[in-house]
Amino acid sequence: MSNRNALQTSRNEDFSEWYQEVIIAAELAENSMVRGCMIIKPWGYAIWERIKELLDSELKKSDHENCYFPMFIPLELFEKEAEHVSGFAKEMAVVTHHRLEANETGKLVPAGKLESPLIVRPTSETIIGESFAKWIKSYRDLPLKINQWTNVVRWEMRPRIFLRTSEFLWQEGHTAHSSCDEALEETKFILSLYGKLAENYMRIPVYKGVKSESEKFPGAAETYCIEAIMQDGKALQAGTSHYLSQNFSKAAEIKFQTDKGDLDYAYTTSWGCSTRLIGALIMTHSDDDGLRLPSEIAPYQIVIIPVIKKDSSKDEITKYCSDIKNKLNDSGIRCTIVKHGESRGEKWRWIKKGVPLILEIGEKELKTGKHNFIRRIDINKKYESQMINLISDSKRLLVENDNVLWEQANGYLKTLCNQSINRKDDFIEFLTNNTNKHAIVAWNENEESHYNEIISSFGYTIRCKLEIESNEDLCCVLTNLSLIHISEPTRPERISYAVFYLKNKQTNPEI
Amino acid sequence: MSNRNALQTSRNEDFSEWYQEVIIAAELAENSMVRGCMIIKPWGYAIWERIKELLDSELKKSDHENCYFPMFIPLELFEKEAEHVSGFAKEMAVVTHHRLEANETGKLVPAGKLESPLIVRPTSETIIGESFAKWIKSYRDLPLKINQWTNVVRWEMRPRIFLRTSEFLWQEGHTAHSSCDEALEETKFILSLYGKLAENYMRIPVYKGVKSESEKFPGAAETYCIEAIMQDGKALQAGTSHYLSQNFSKAAEIKFQTDKGDLDYAYTTSWGCSTRLIGALIMTHSDDDGLRLPSEIAPYQIVIIPVIKKDSSKDEITKYCSDIKNKLNDSGIRCTIVKHGESRGEKWRWIKKGVPLILEIGEKELKTGKHNFIRRIDINKKYESQMINLISDSKRLLVENDNVLWEQANGYLKTLCNQSINRKDDFIEFLTNNTNKHAIVAWNENEESHYNEIISSFGYTIRCKLEIESNEDLCCVLTNLSLIHISEPTRPERISYAVFYLKNKQTNPEI
Repeated sequence: MSNRNALQTSRNEDFSEWYQEVIIAAELAENSMVRGCMIIKPWGYAIWERIKELLDSELKKSDHENCYFPMFIPLELFEKEAEHVSGFAKEMAVVTHHRLEANETGKLVPAGKLESPLIVRPTSETIIGESFAKWIKSYRDLPLKINQWTNVVRWEMRPRIFLRTSEFLWQEGHTAHSSCDEALEETKFILSLYGKLAENYMRIPVYKGVKSESEKFPGAAETYCIEAIMQDGKALQAGTSHYLSQNFSKAAEIKFQTDKGDLDYAYTTSWGCSTRLIGALIMTHSDDDGLRLPSEIAPYQIVIIPVIKKDSSKDEITKYCSDIKNKLNDSGIRCTIVKHGESRGEKWRWIKKGVPLILEIGEKELKTGKHNFIRRIDINKKYESQMINLISDSKRLLVENDNVLWEQANGYLKTLCNQSINRKDDFIEFLTNNTNKHAIVAWNENEESHYNEIISSFGYTIRCKLEIESNEDLCCVLTNLSLIHISEPTRPERISYAVFYLKNKQTNPEI
Repeated sequence: MSNRNALQTSRNEDFSEWYQEVIIAAELAENSMVRGCMIIKPWGYAIWERIKELLDSELKKSDHENCYFPMFIPLELFEKEAEHVSGFAKEMAVVTHHRLEANETGKLVPAGKLESPLIVRPTSETIIGESFAKWIKSYRDLPLKINQWTNVVRWEMRPRIFLRTSEFLWQEGHTAHSSCDEALEETKFILSLYGKLAENYMRIPVYKGVKSESEKFPGAAETYCIEAIMQDGKALQAGTSHYLSQNFSKAAEIKFQTDKGDLDYAYTTSWGCSTRLIGALIMTHSDDDGLRLPSEIAPYQIVIIPVIKKDSSKDEITKYCSDIKNKLNDSGIRCTIVKHGESRGEKWRWIKKGVPLILEIGEKELKTGKHNFIRRIDINKKYESQMINLISDSKRLLVENDNVLWEQANGYLKTLCNQSINRKDDFIEFLTNNTNKHAIVAWNENEESHYNEIISSFGYTIRCKLEIESNEDLCCVLTNLSLIHISEPTRPERISYAVFYLKNKQTNPEI
């Protein structure tokens, strides 16, 4: 249906342009005058606050404690890191002076040169590692599980709002444990939290897997990740959880006395997810009318628009709206009344902002006690509700909103995924003929460099390895060699599957 | 009473050293390897989270919206500010490069020089002003009321944890209005919120007043502030709210079309309070045993220490503690069970951390169903409670905790304040003979420079002006001239009082 209120560009015409338009139309964020840095506007920030609240409460329930480490890191700490990490990232903001002074022409110039430059944190492993080394003395001090919600900076040459920005907001967790098993368990537990956040709350279906050798975080023993598939078929890394084994604790000298009296290095983990999740949310759920929001993430789940015409009884309508709002709020539904309710434009404003349900309330509704819900998932229909059913109808419609978002997102993920490839010929044909699709294939991990060689020539990358239970004997898609399948019910043989994804490899891993 | 668990230094011996010891003993924060920057440890950060939650919910209730602006501000914006603000602060972190590179000797050095340096925000007026100028077009866009919770940096030559740090955490609010009255009302409303936060929640008595001409924020028409008095008699500026009139909007070109169709500059405000509040909390309530916390601010209000001896029934005690904890949590009391409960040292650990109530629970408590509360406000007594009264007793003891903290703090504030001075001779005598006390005197604002001249020679400053209703005719303490008192009940004549405070003028105003 042609709709003059819709965005100018549709998803199919130009996905990238459409993405920018959704962000503007939904009033989420905008570029700032500092290249690569974004201004997160109230609606975008309220979404981030929802994400924070949901994840933070899970982290606290599982005994993680929040804290705050300085944003400045001495250059020397990076030298230590650069020595043992080959893939050391170098794009970061460097502070060299601590004062502004007017020069002879009155122009402000940097002054007060620092003896040694400071780096604005791109992540805090190094500075937190220094503290862990001081704080941890005995096995009794373990596990140590901390988290912080902060801003970080990684200089970005090709910035895109929420996806790749020079400054972004995130949480970074850092833990230390007395055993390998416990640290690995923590890494996987966090992956499960990220999965829950994405799937249960944000309604974004994700692959929960492990990065291949060539794609993992430099210095990590294993990098676990959640990978979402956007509506253009591209994958987006939406959260990572690293098992660092003793690699990092050896560099940072995080030692502890074991319960047997020996000295050992701690086993550490680190994990993060960022405002990039808002990018994933937009690219998963939005349509050509703007943003659509799942109910757990929507800052407001219902917006009431008072419809006050010239001959309306304004005071009565205002009071009626306020009563409905209070009733909904009391039942735990986040609801607001728009202020400039006189304008019909408000309906479209809130549609673009993705609020799940809208109630327009005027003279008629006041008289009849019946209300028509406008649902964001099918804006052309109306859903009548009697006053007596207001709360139960609201709750039901919010559940339906979430189900529809999930089914649609999961639907396109399924259509973009080929799981039936088990011969080399088919695999090469898939790689040759497809764009922005992905495949799940059985492989032999020892052949990773061989795989990479082949798929990279088609512009594909290994996105992550999945653990999938299977009753069939599987063969490696390249070598055709059988992968041994041990049918042990309690711990099915780990079969590594590879998810591939095409071109434009996403940069800027979370940690 | 001599107590081997107490801090090494008492308040009376060395206030400044004692302050540092409380911070370490209560596990609040520590200095980082970057000079002037602090590491806020979990207990300190949890206190900050309580402060945030309490203030944030008040701000949201009053229609303020949170958002996020970039931490980097282009140097050019400061040049604009420097032009119109004479008291322009210059100590700030300057980013000049965006990369680290290894030089020929393998040493990492700054590379990728920026065309124009970026400043790490010392406050965000300038960059937010740019957005306001873009966003505000008509009176319909007003009021615009935003807030952000962020880190800011002001290079600090004499850092002190929580009080003066190069990086600190704060909230900064920025609003724009269509009229002077509305903006002024907002400024005062925020002052009342800060007052409520300090007095009702943090139990810190404060003076709520206005800065004198010579002490106000450069560029502000009026700077409102809350001033707390610490146990050493010194004042601490704990929050400021600035009415900027049209000064700032003229510099930033924040214009709007009025309802009459004219163009006018918006009236703006800005206001902030920071992690310095934690410093105020420590210096107001702590004693020689460590921190003491009011119940609204305490991350845990009650800590349960399981006392498990060799012959104890460990499982039963553990379950019993857990039942009590759940019962308290369900009634809305923040309660936790310590993990290494075997150690008697835990009691003193939590006393130093300032938790209001401690319950030690072992074999005896399990058998009798009676518990002894240890109260932080009188640690040598025990308060017996029956299981059936657990919740009501807990709530009562928490209220008592708060009342005692308030009365003690308010008590020393009163003893340090002289309100009876009304003649010049007495005033000079007060200035001559007192250290770390303050006086409230009637004055004539037109004589400010005269006042400043006199009091500064004694090391005193005007801390703030108070509005106090009075039925008496008052005379200026210096000139002896009568200040006219108009007895209009609805709007009592504003009599400006001055609070003076001695030596060591606090630097680093909040905004």
